[in-house]
Amino acid sequence: MSEKPRKRNAFYAQSGGVTAVINASACGVIETARAHKDRIGKVFAGRNGILGALHEDLIDTSKETKANIAALRHTPGGAFGSCRYKLRSLEENRAEYERLIEVFEAHDIGYFFYNGGGDSQDTAHKVSQLSRKLGHPITCIGVPKTVDNDLPITDCCPGFGSVAKYVAVSTREAGLDVASMCETSTKVFVLEVMGRHAGWIAAAAGLAAEEPGDPPHVILFPEIAFDREKFLARVRRTVEQQGYCVVVVSEGAQNPDGSFLADAGTVDAFGHKQLGGVAPFVAEMVREALGYKYHWAVADYLQRSARHVGSAVDVEQAYAVGRAAVEFALAGKDAVMPTIVRGPGKRYRWSIGEAPLSKVANVEKKMPRSFVTRDGFGITAKAREYLAPLVAGEAETPWKDGLPRIARLKRVPVAKKLPPFRG
Amino acid sequence: MSEKPRKRNAFYAQSGGVTAVINASACGVIETARAHKDRIGKVFAGRNGILGALHEDLIDTSKETKANIAALRHTPGGAFGSCRYKLRSLEENRAEYERLIEVFEAHDIGYFFYNGGGDSQDTAHKVSQLSRKLGHPITCIGVPKTVDNDLPITDCCPGFGSVAKYVAVSTREAGLDVASMCETSTKVFVLEVMGRHAGWIAAAAGLAAEEPGDPPHVILFPEIAFDREKFLARVRRTVEQQGYCVVVVSEGAQNPDGSFLADAGTVDAFGHKQLGGVAPFVAEMVREALGYKYHWAVADYLQRSARHVGSAVDVEQAYAVGRAAVEFALAGKDAVMPTIVRGPGKRYRWSIGEAPLSKVANVEKKMPRSFVTRDGFGITAKAREYLAPLVAGEAETPWKDGLPRIARLKRVPVAKKLPPFRG
Repeated sequence: MSEKPRKRNAFYAQSGGVTAVINASACGVIETARAHKDRIGKVFAGRNGILGALHEDLIDTSKETKANIAALRHTPGGAFGSCRYKLRSLEENRAEYERLIEVFEAHDIGYFFYNGGGDSQDTAHKVSQLSRKLGHPITCIGVPKTVDNDLPITDCCPGFGSVAKYVAVSTREAGLDVASMCETSTKVFVLEVMGRHAGWIAAAAGLAAEEPGDPPHVILFPEIAFDREKFLARVRRTVEQQGYCVVVVSEGAQNPDGSFLADAGTVDAFGHKQLGGVAPFVAEMVREALGYKYHWAVADYLQRSARHVGSAVDVEQAYAVGRAAVEFALAGKDAVMPTIVRGPGKRYRWSIGEAPLSKVANVEKKMPRSFVTRDGFGITAKAREYLAPLVAGEAETPWKDGLPRIARLKRVPVAKKLPPFRG
Repeated sequence: MSEKPRKRNAFYAQSGGVTAVINASACGVIETARAHKDRIGKVFAGRNGILGALHEDLIDTSKETKANIAALRHTPGGAFGSCRYKLRSLEENRAEYERLIEVFEAHDIGYFFYNGGGDSQDTAHKVSQLSRKLGHPITCIGVPKTVDNDLPITDCCPGFGSVAKYVAVSTREAGLDVASMCETSTKVFVLEVMGRHAGWIAAAAGLAAEEPGDPPHVILFPEIAFDREKFLARVRRTVEQQGYCVVVVSEGAQNPDGSFLADAGTVDAFGHKQLGGVAPFVAEMVREALGYKYHWAVADYLQRSARHVGSAVDVEQAYAVGRAAVEFALAGKDAVMPTIVRGPGKRYRWSIGEAPLSKVANVEKKMPRSFVTRDGFGITAKAREYLAPLVAGEAETPWKDGLPRIARLKRVPVAKKLPPFRG
């Protein structure tokens, strides 16, 4: 009979920009770990992501009620705190990695679940390698998350479907508003959405259109160099034909020289300092050139936290990758990340696959050019086919007094055992 | 036996900024009129509001299917087009009023239902008076609508509850996002909301907070003169205590001298200043003074078209005022507007009342000072008591392929009978 593996604790952390469903992944990790108490002791969460590990600032999730852990499934944001902090390379700062392993050892942590984007998968990969080298092997499993949808291998990234749904829904709704006002008032509406390096989120706005002439009429992608004259001509033609024009612009929209659109102008028409925001920049450009009255919106954090309009598929996938991460660990896998695999055939079906962290780390998946129409302003049928299933279904949201219920965690700290880290 | 009143057609028009539920009022008007075919012939809708009457540009709603009219209940925007066009005074331009009556006579229109804010109620009132003076009496009933919640007499205005719900929900959700990021990234988040003259919408953000320390931490109301030092001190204290600070700012936030905090400089057809961009202005002020990293969002049209998160109470009330308008007309009333009357007692109950247009026209209801906390940055228990029932319940939204279904009207024009209007 083979020896049963020793029961050890787990560490879970959230990393980078949060999403409407990253807590659903946390829920998947914690609930699945709780279901395997013979193998996994407690799940400790890093307060503010990996910083919690470096500073031994751990939250004991075993103190949270079952109901509160379940409520993570519908609570946006990062329940344990996230951080924008990238560990330097092993050569540059080996001390940080060694500290992580030291903290994990001190708290008998044998499993490391890191919920984040490409940078985080890189960190998890390095921790796995180093822990083995140092003779304290820690099972490291990545849990994919990013609204930017730019992780490789996986068909899509948990977090993206919900922001895509928010953007498509908002574009349709605001488009109806502008259409009603355009005869005497606003003719051009500009909505700015996230996606600094890739146009996945902007592309999702295209789902708002069902029939020819429906908004959005123009999408400005980071992948397509901005052509001022062509853009203005398109806006003018759309207003002349439809009476109004809805423009969706990615925050990452770029000039032909690769600079961001909004960085180009530092002063607006009134001589005021340009305070950022590519939407007001584009709107003012239209007014100056064509004289149209405009409105603009910048959704910012609203789009990635809008769990009330979350995609059911996205929430399910976010939970599933959390659950799969624990199952992978229990199956003895290491340095892998669960992925979403799209099934063949017309009807959307998905399953969980796996990718080695070495192939995920620091690789950015670009949107294919074939997703953008030849004129550069819209999405193709191929893009629509890819995007549509990801926004499908309305994720269940419990309400109380007209507002979404949220998890109210106790966040009980784990007693420290080590001296402070001086990294 | 008394003579049965002659069957006549009705005219319905939408006016001013549209809302998530103005079409629910249209639905109420049209469905109720259809249920009284013995008294009301066809309902003609003005294309682009009152302009449709002036230019004899009428839409025959009898050509729309029952299903499409029912779908108006969940379709945001103004289905027949709205306009920002205020009729001048009778003295200044009597010709416009006479033209309206001429068009109404030409199409045998005996009922005028005008769905709008204070300006529109004034127009309806004048048409009623003049039509009587000219011997062609037209029954004029106002249908209240405005996200600004500033009509007098009525307890609230259809359109407000849904924008209030959107703002409260978005504030809660984005607040969770900022809370997760604040350790290493964004410390201050500024959300700009509508409400040019009154802080009703901004106040609704206060509903997001359930427990002490919950966002929003600061609300900037148009009613409270902006005090830069006091504001910055509050932001600093909040960041020091909570780790982050969520600010909700009304587009109408004002300096002590009455000027808008961020004045875009342009004016609309009513001579109102076009606002926008107070969020980036406030965010940049915070960064300059305190050095905090910020994010900001401007919800703009998204907030007033967000029918997907519509308030159930608001949708019901919007429909009810439309239905009541027709019932008032059939009961022989004239120059009145249905109102929402709040019942006594702790449990929220409402019924339909009525107000003479003469008392509604051009009167702006301000938010009571007692709704704002003494420090000027929050809402009181009294405000919460008023606001909470208005965002209660989630309005039914039918979905298709992950997006809200919308009405697709045919908008069949009525044949013109008059020469063009040269007003």
